[in-house]
Amino acid sequence: MSDPTDAVTPSRRGLPTAVLLLSCPDQRGVVAAVADFIASYDGNILHAEQHVDDIDGPGGVGGVFFQRVEFELAGFGLGRTQILEALEPVAERFRLDVGLHFSDERPRTAILASKQPHCLYDLLTRWRTGELVTDLVAVIANHPDHADICEHLGVPYLYLPVGDDKAAQEAQVRAELRARDVDLVVLARYMQILSPGFVAEHPNRIINIHHSFLPAFIGANPYRQAHDRGVKLIGATAHYVTADLDEGPIIEQEVARATHRDDVAHLTQKGRDLETIVLARAVRAHIEHRILVYGHKTVVFG
Amino acid sequence: MSDPTDAVTPSRRGLPTAVLLLSCPDQRGVVAAVADFIASYDGNILHAEQHVDDIDGPGGVGGVFFQRVEFELAGFGLGRTQILEALEPVAERFRLDVGLHFSDERPRTAILASKQPHCLYDLLTRWRTGELVTDLVAVIANHPDHADICEHLGVPYLYLPVGDDKAAQEAQVRAELRARDVDLVVLARYMQILSPGFVAEHPNRIINIHHSFLPAFIGANPYRQAHDRGVKLIGATAHYVTADLDEGPIIEQEVARATHRDDVAHLTQKGRDLETIVLARAVRAHIEHRILVYGHKTVVFG
Amino acid sequence: MSDPTDAVTPSRRGLPTAVLLLSCPDQRGVVAAVADFIASYDGNILHAEQHVDDIDGPGGVGGVFFQRVEFELAGFGLGRTQILEALEPVAERFRLDVGLHFSDERPRTAILASKQPHCLYDLLTRWRTGELVTDLVAVIANHPDHADICEHLGVPYLYLPVGDDKAAQEAQVRAELRARDVDLVVLARYMQILSPGFVAEHPNRIINIHHSFLPAFIGANPYRQAHDRGVKLIGATAHYVTADLDEGPIIEQEVARATHRDDVAHLTQKGRDLETIVLARAVRAHIEHRILVYGHKTVVFG
Amino acid sequence: MSDPTDAVTPSRRGLPTAVLLLSCPDQRGVVAAVADFIASYDGNILHAEQHVDDIDGPGGVGGVFFQRVEFELAGFGLGRTQILEALEPVAERFRLDVGLHFSDERPRTAILASKQPHCLYDLLTRWRTGELVTDLVAVIANHPDHADICEHLGVPYLYLPVGDDKAAQEAQVRAELRARDVDLVVLARYMQILSPGFVAEHPNRIINIHHSFLPAFIGANPYRQAHDRGVKLIGATAHYVTADLDEGPIIEQEVARATHRDDVAHLTQKGRDLETIVLARAVRAHIEHRILVYGHKTVVFG
Repeated sequence: MSDPTDAVTPSRRGLPTAVLLLSCPDQRGVVAAVADFIASYDGNILHAEQHVDDIDGPGGVGGVFFQRVEFELAGFGLGRTQILEALEPVAERFRLDVGLHFSDERPRTAILASKQPHCLYDLLTRWRTGELVTDLVAVIANHPDHADICEHLGVPYLYLPVGDDKAAQEAQVRAELRARDVDLVVLARYMQILSPGFVAEHPNRIINIHHSFLPAFIGANPYRQAHDRGVKLIGATAHYVTADLDEGPIIEQEVARATHRDDVAHLTQKGRDLETIVLARAVRAHIEHRILVYGHKTVVFG
Repeated sequence: MSDPTDAVTPSRRGLPTAVLLLSCPDQRGVVAAVADFIASYDGNILHAEQHVDDIDGPGGVGGVFFQRVEFELAGFGLGRTQILEALEPVAERFRLDVGLHFSDERPRTAILASKQPHCLYDLLTRWRTGELVTDLVAVIANHPDHADICEHLGVPYLYLPVGDDKAAQEAQVRAELRARDVDLVVLARYMQILSPGFVAEHPNRIINIHHSFLPAFIGANPYRQAHDRGVKLIGATAHYVTADLDEGPIIEQEVARATHRDDVAHLTQKGRDLETIVLARAVRAHIEHRILVYGHKTVVFG
Repeated sequence: MSDPTDAVTPSRRGLPTAVLLLSCPDQRGVVAAVADFIASYDGNILHAEQHVDDIDGPGGVGGVFFQRVEFELAGFGLGRTQILEALEPVAERFRLDVGLHFSDERPRTAILASKQPHCLYDLLTRWRTGELVTDLVAVIANHPDHADICEHLGVPYLYLPVGDDKAAQEAQVRAELRARDVDLVVLARYMQILSPGFVAEHPNRIINIHHSFLPAFIGANPYRQAHDRGVKLIGATAHYVTADLDEGPIIEQEVARATHRDDVAHLTQKGRDLETIVLARAVRAHIEHRILVYGHKTVVFG
Repeated sequence: MSDPTDAVTPSRRGLPTAVLLLSCPDQRGVVAAVADFIASYDGNILHAEQHVDDIDGPGGVGGVFFQRVEFELAGFGLGRTQILEALEPVAERFRLDVGLHFSDERPRTAILASKQPHCLYDLLTRWRTGELVTDLVAVIANHPDHADICEHLGVPYLYLPVGDDKAAQEAQVRAELRARDVDLVVLARYMQILSPGFVAEHPNRIINIHHSFLPAFIGANPYRQAHDRGVKLIGATAHYVTADLDEGPIIEQEVARATHRDDVAHLTQKGRDLETIVLARAVRAHIEHRILVYGHKTVVFG
């Protein structure tokens, strides 16, 4: 069995990189200040993307600046632990919100699943073949079905059934995530609604796949709803989970063509390919530190 | 200027064809009976498509059968006006709902427009170049802007502004449509809501373009709504107009990718291409007699 | 582990169906004759699609008629083994080429793979979850990597490495396929070119996935070729294998957007999703008896 | 008739902007140097995108750096004519190739057309409605058909038929382009092959639309070729014209689904929508100064 560490690293020449995710009130000079900071330590910028968004606020409409800068660590004049401190004067001057990540540090990920296998299996395959560069620390499910494949792949499988006491099961799940120090929770068609407390514990760190083109067909049985409405396209939406069900920041969406020939079973089948691809893209964008969340929206850099 | 009658006729070998649009309760033998009917008069079937849909009804779930059959008129043993009568025994036996159309008979079409030009111009171009084989009997608008292009193309242009008396203007529009014996009304971003009486006068004969992926973003300013929600795809929907706004049977939908970089103005611009294409496809499907409506859904044959 | 027999059967109401795949010179009356045949034994037609294609031949251009008819076996007045004989008079009269299949008879399928796992794993998942209703009789690979997952799933895995004697390895593969009485061979990124004899043994029964939008980028390293050319879309193509490499009848194609940011490694990664989906769709269409091959083209019914 | 100057300007707040298009050998510090330059004159960067591409050269593989920077002119400390001179030290230090454009300066564009109207009409509509912000200085055609619509829109129409002396006609066309000081030539399905001299006179300033997914189906009758090959998608490609026919740098491509039901006439019709949209997107990207050409490839910034 090939080692999942055989992964393609995202850096251009295969060397580790640092990623800065920045946001601040829009103002002159911030791009230059960040570029200067990196240049002053001989850093080589591989990718830099920025975006300015106009947002309504209490003081009127104001611009918010977002930036993702990826630079090579080789030859950079600061050690990894020195970067944030050295950046502090710039951060203070521009009131920067700073995230710092390294391409060779793998987020600790847990997948939550129910009976349906397609998203789970797809994520497992992408992880196993090195496409998703993450430490997969657990699959937690309220059904026993996927134990053997996880065991086969060497991923801890926790079967935590939902009995009479739904709250108790959730408490167990949360304890297990805490015990594993999880950075990212992926709901791979997990058919349980999370409590506000659960969500608050992992802000912008829980990704869900909803099987419709949100905001159309919020709630249960979206394929049934889509069939009843007679739409000519069906969709899937990956989003961060917030306290409002199906209202979290959208990360990725995709659609597929439907016709009158598609009954609910066919829509469900077609939708499975959408769900797996959309969820995989969203997880990948998160793991590669390409997402910035603001309000209930996302900036997803390319 | 080339004559719009230079059109590609939809028939395979360029000869006129007859199109039967049929529906009935699902039952054995209907396909054979219709095929026999055509064969018995030496008809040559060029296309035949059928569909069975399960529909909830007062007597439980029942299947409904839909069929589109297109056959060559050349060599057919019945004259055009004799076909329905000859088909009557079959129609009675299977309780068929029958529509009969001929590929060389052009529906009389009116376009209703407001200030925005893109859908109107696109339809005019497709009509002018022979892609939409229809008699364009009028463009009616509540803005004067498009008079000159219509005059240039030889299409009657009626400028009927909406003043203080909205109902009076609508009455005028309806009278003009009646006077022109219109078969199809196309709302090319016509920014007026039609009264129930207007809609009832043209059942399944008014096509509207809504600039969202319905049922998402019903109502006003869908691009603004889409931007606020942070969706990653925007859409457009062509549908028949019914008494319920934006709830009519959907004919066609399409989407385009959006990113955080797209402000409302960009979404609006991207959306224009969606709107024109989706509306053109829907009008084309209608004109080619490929649509059957049942309840608030459509069968659109390929 | 759930039994893969839990599959959604393709019939509308879950009962077994018969599928007739027919072709003949285009002529009047064939649709009626086939419908009559089914109706005369009280058969209920669920789906019927037909197509007429103009083909250049030695005697000039002639139409060829293709039809797929699916009808319920429940209540049908003939046993399965009696159908072809009873149809013979119709077949003779119209010089019909007839294929007869039953929805509950599973084709015996073998997958050939090399080192790359994505298409193989995807097919295994779809088979395991019941989406691909087939008897998976073997995975044959010239690399040992996938033995454990196949063993885990209970699929026989034959590791037949290509050593110095390429012909000997192919002979082994062919012998194994013969021994297993295989109906369908799927090349899931199998990196060996098949000999003409191998191809001739399985006419229109070997499906390959080529990682480009054929006929662009025939041959080796299509993602490298695509990158060198600077295309803005990459593609994948599933086709039946014929003696001419990459020239076989195309079953399915799909594309994804590429940009200047995509180096060869990124194109390869994006392409993997295309390859898996395109191959899965093609295999599914074959298994559901929706494909008719004529010359080097296909009719794929919906 | 509305004035085409009612256009949406591409700048975020509607004020004029400057666009720098830069390329140079990849090296440290260039991003910072450019950002510093703009910041030092109090410029506000609205958009900045960059790309590094690895290119094989005589001295081995080397990185090439590309950047597009758009900044507001309001408040900027240099006049328009002073910018290039002030930038010179930076340009020299990094061996920058510099292009400077202003959002309110409209390129002078000529469209070349033949008999087919769809691309021409679509461009005219987009120009007329303000989507394409350009000075349309002439439509030159070798057919008389479009004279009236151009006259109607106030665009000079030059009818230059190709008679016996093809070279003489081309010389006329080139003289007219020269006389009008044209910045951009758009071939809107212009069915004449340009001589190398013509092409050399307008390097990376002639955009052509080819009605296939290049490099598939180079040359004549691509829809016929596509039909013969039995592809399941058809495409269109916009590219800069170079001396090698259909080999120029690709700007944009798009595809649409095709089936066995599509004969050559249907493919042609479906393809028209692809051609118009792909050409319009390419022209728009050029006009908005978002394209950098290197070798036979393009960087198209978002």
